[in-house]
Amino acid sequence: MDLALDGKGFLYEQIARALKVAILEGRLTAGSRLPSTRLLSRTLQVSRKSVLEAYDLLCAEQLAVALVGSGTRVADFNSRLISPTRAARVKPPSKFVTRMRNLPPIALAGYVRPEAQFKYDLVYGEPIIRPALLNSWRRKMSAASLRAGPFYPTAGGYLPLRRAISDHLARRHVVICDPANVLIVGGTQQALSLVARVLLDEGDIAVVEDPCYQMAMQCLSSHGAQLVRVSTDAQGLEVRKLPSRATKLVHVTPSHQFPGGSVMSLARKMELLHWARKTGAWIFEDNYDAEFHSGGRPDPALCTLDLAEQTIYAGSFSKTLFPSLRLGYIVCPVGLRNDLFKAKLLDDLGSPTIEQAALATFIHSRQYERHLRKSIDELTRRRRALHVSFKQLLGSEVDIGPCRRGMHAIVWLKNLSYEQLDLLVKQAASAGLGIYPVHPYFEARPSRPGLLIGYAGISAGQIGTAAEILARCIKKVRK
Amino acid sequence: MDLALDGKGFLYEQIARALKVAILEGRLTAGSRLPSTRLLSRTLQVSRKSVLEAYDLLCAEQLAVALVGSGTRVADFNSRLISPTRAARVKPPSKFVTRMRNLPPIALAGYVRPEAQFKYDLVYGEPIIRPALLNSWRRKMSAASLRAGPFYPTAGGYLPLRRAISDHLARRHVVICDPANVLIVGGTQQALSLVARVLLDEGDIAVVEDPCYQMAMQCLSSHGAQLVRVSTDAQGLEVRKLPSRATKLVHVTPSHQFPGGSVMSLARKMELLHWARKTGAWIFEDNYDAEFHSGGRPDPALCTLDLAEQTIYAGSFSKTLFPSLRLGYIVCPVGLRNDLFKAKLLDDLGSPTIEQAALATFIHSRQYERHLRKSIDELTRRRRALHVSFKQLLGSEVDIGPCRRGMHAIVWLKNLSYEQLDLLVKQAASAGLGIYPVHPYFEARPSRPGLLIGYAGISAGQIGTAAEILARCIKKVRK
Repeated sequence: MDLALDGKGFLYEQIARALKVAILEGRLTAGSRLPSTRLLSRTLQVSRKSVLEAYDLLCAEQLAVALVGSGTRVADFNSRLISPTRAARVKPPSKFVTRMRNLPPIALAGYVRPEAQFKYDLVYGEPIIRPALLNSWRRKMSAASLRAGPFYPTAGGYLPLRRAISDHLARRHVVICDPANVLIVGGTQQALSLVARVLLDEGDIAVVEDPCYQMAMQCLSSHGAQLVRVSTDAQGLEVRKLPSRATKLVHVTPSHQFPGGSVMSLARKMELLHWARKTGAWIFEDNYDAEFHSGGRPDPALCTLDLAEQTIYAGSFSKTLFPSLRLGYIVCPVGLRNDLFKAKLLDDLGSPTIEQAALATFIHSRQYERHLRKSIDELTRRRRALHVSFKQLLGSEVDIGPCRRGMHAIVWLKNLSYEQLDLLVKQAASAGLGIYPVHPYFEARPSRPGLLIGYAGISAGQIGTAAEILARCIKKVRK
Repeated sequence: MDLALDGKGFLYEQIARALKVAILEGRLTAGSRLPSTRLLSRTLQVSRKSVLEAYDLLCAEQLAVALVGSGTRVADFNSRLISPTRAARVKPPSKFVTRMRNLPPIALAGYVRPEAQFKYDLVYGEPIIRPALLNSWRRKMSAASLRAGPFYPTAGGYLPLRRAISDHLARRHVVICDPANVLIVGGTQQALSLVARVLLDEGDIAVVEDPCYQMAMQCLSSHGAQLVRVSTDAQGLEVRKLPSRATKLVHVTPSHQFPGGSVMSLARKMELLHWARKTGAWIFEDNYDAEFHSGGRPDPALCTLDLAEQTIYAGSFSKTLFPSLRLGYIVCPVGLRNDLFKAKLLDDLGSPTIEQAALATFIHSRQYERHLRKSIDELTRRRRALHVSFKQLLGSEVDIGPCRRGMHAIVWLKNLSYEQLDLLVKQAASAGLGIYPVHPYFEARPSRPGLLIGYAGISAGQIGTAAEILARCIKKVRK
């Protein structure tokens, strides 16, 4: 008898597993006698104790029966059940899987962490790390662990958190909303995937901006949407280019186009809402980093201008706090409120309570607002460092795209070809600098290559050094 | 001009909002002059300061323009954009929503918390509350907050947790699996909803046991499955009754049928696997409370007997630790591994890291195993109390269903009609006892009514009192 041990776990377990496979494959037939422990220990060159233990294990699992005085036998299965004459081909997965398998590869970014570790990493999606925040968060979590209660959460979200978010949004003049319409989700991604399930059938048209956040496209496509990409300009989405066909959903980033960087003008917002009212389409307002707005009042959100309630407003704490938290929220329009809440219940029965409770206190105590102010100041410093050092060291080589808020910018490489871009990325990597091409975010390669620069994970001082390295690498590549 | 204030937030915000609505509805036309602050303050009977602040807010939001010496005007929108001649009907939601709206109501249980609070609550789904656990969990969370890192998680799960689960499952002789195939999810519900998306297209046949966990049915139905219910007996699912038609997926609870209470025999498991190999169907092995198995080795899991890798094994920490944690895992069969991982990425980019890191230490340090042992002992005591007190106080009135493991049992009411059951539930409620009918878990009402009794949230001593109250209520109802 041929028994191959797989090397996993204790020896007796390996022996038992090998015997089990032999039984299940029908090589050891039901009711037949197992080799004597003495014989098997010699064959396998293992101790007799291991074989004895393996036989005990098989008996405990009911696959074998120990008989007094006559060794151990394979249990008396219905032998018909072993090895069917022909095994059917396993049922194919769903169309959802077919669509997932056809998605383009995801370009590296903070949300699909690159394996390489760079000394200077300009990756987008890293949070601003403030040790004070993490320490204060630790205390909030510790207190929340005892307060939150071990029971199943309310699927729609922990009520004190929904209240705190509603209060915060009102205080910051973003949106006036009833906590009953605030749905807590596991970040913008879950917000979008719930909306996709609630709105999209296979073949439905969903519009995304060009350029666009790749995970939004992946999510909508996998849910069967037929994606239409509409270009953006300095005022945001070019509404006049929206298809007149039956669009079901439009994904927009009005407060800070991702990754283009423009801010949607009020006129454009009015046009978009007008179009939506005329066509009956839904709008997903993705405010992934709206809270990093600095100075004065934020521009009015689409959803506050939308009296027809066709706008689904989604906010996230991944950028403003940190992404490992996995918390965000949807301000639901009345017409979809119950459906979105039910979709969340069916998806995961609700988000973890302790984190929600910690976040509720963090917002309620205004620590969140203080943290936002400090983060905005720090990001402004870094933005300035970026402008100054890139202009100074790379002036004729680069154009910096709109960069007045948030934590990213596009830097266009004026004198390089796409072949040279590949080289540049490699050169930079070997010099300890992580840089990331921006063209995967566009429908068609822009005429000149560009980089998506994230500056939340790198200090103002390091930005200068990064610019120096980049300048050196560009010089090398152009030679 | 008719301005209705909505009473939300500061007065000036209410005024500004009312004006905004008037502008957006076209009642205040683009470019027109707003009433003087003096006039409006008199009309609305508010201070002039409030009106001034409201006008400032409108200007900040670009909806109005302040002109030196000539008051404030509505911004010069393209007036075509206001009030389209006819608004289109908003696009209807997806078929997913139609299906969700057609789902039967969910019977109250721990995962859809009843509003009423009872002194003695026999609800299923409450966790075993051990203050020592919560306290130790608090310390683990606190330490994990600093260790886990603020970055985006790995969507498939925090690797140390996946390793800890794989080790734990091997140590407890449940499953031998590679951590690379362990996918961390937000509880069994998310496990099932990911599997539904990965396997089911509209109209696909999914088999569930009768009786069955209602959230499993809701999840599969909403994803378009055509549900076929197959009855269970003392050995578990009656495999010979499985449809010969093209079944895509079978949801089973072999280690402890929910809520029936039986344990699937080895012979039945072999039959089920044989059937699956013959038909190519996938099996979802829902081991929601398998870890509460007491004494000796657990029965072999379906997935360890399944050499064809058609079984998706799902485990949860909602019962063994507590449900507000929202963590569970899938041991993925090789054929679906990448698809399930990608579906998780697209659904929410991964579960929160801090909780995963806390759980990893909790398992790795063996505190989880100690907690399990203590919980099993305590549940055994409660089960005994249930048997003793129900036999003694309700002997001729009830039959207790299989009740050898886990944290629930069905108690059949031998002498009551369904009309009397409704009365009984109300009587019990007014006496401070929460009881929950079991028939919503069955396809057809069983011939006699029964209760789904959860005993994790009530002490052994309280169980006796609950039995007394129940006995009194039954007497009253039968009169």
